[in-house]
Amino acid sequence: MSDYQVTQLGSPAAWNEQGKHFVDKDVETQYIGVSANGFAPGQETSIWHSHARLEEIYIAIAGAGQIAVDHEVVDLVPGTTVRVGQGVQRALRALPDGPGLQYLCVRAGGAPLKEVSGDSTRSEDPKPWS
Amino acid sequence: MSDYQVTQLGSPAAWNEQGKHFVDKDVETQYIGVSANGFAPGQETSIWHSHARLEEIYIAIAGAGQIAVDHEVVDLVPGTTVRVGQGVQRALRALPDGPGLQYLCVRAGGAPLKEVSGDSTRSEDPKPWS
Repeated sequence: MSDYQVTQLGSPAAWNEQGKHFVDKDVETQYIGVSANGFAPGQETSIWHSHARLEEIYIAIAGAGQIAVDHEVVDLVPGTTVRVGQGVQRALRALPDGPGLQYLCVRAGGAPLKEVSGDSTRSEDPKPWS
Repeated sequence: MSDYQVTQLGSPAAWNEQGKHFVDKDVETQYIGVSANGFAPGQETSIWHSHARLEEIYIAIAGAGQIAVDHEVVDLVPGTTVRVGQGVQRALRALPDGPGLQYLCVRAGGAPLKEVSGDSTRSEDPKPWS
């Protein structure tokens, strides 16, 4: 049996309905975590946080939104890709007057994923768009 | 200056025109490699290969295609996600009579990306759909 596994995230147009969907909860991965995310207009991540060990790459697939990285805000259109290093706070939102936002978050930390998970720190500071 | 970088992959609908687009060539990443790929109907990866150290996760975004993993073939529709372990040969194609295929390939190897790159082995065997 070859070492591969298959799961279904569904069409990006349907990601708003399923909440955060972790590929690495569906199938066992070694190093890579992936989540598919869909926001209705104005919806945003509840957690404004940084990672100590994980590198993350956010890839906007459809819609219109923003990512806050520390005190800066980057607009997200389909294809916008943002690498976030360690110690940087990040949060995402769909524009309140836009069509919603669908994006992927990829994470890895240079070691087995299980060893580098649980490395996040929440912030109680207001987000830049608050 | 916060440690984050931004690049643009363009809308998935336009990925066919740009060939393989590596996020990790646009911006310096530590652990994660990502490519955006767009195939016209019937187009396929030229390289039928395996990796010694890299884990890869393929995520179909739009269109219709297939991934060959060793001697098996998995259909790809939007959202189909396939994790491929080490030593498994893989190739992808857009269905000849379909609308094309747009997909992401994510790779990481449990060490800095530069240390685990160049680990691929090509196969001269026919692909399962040949």
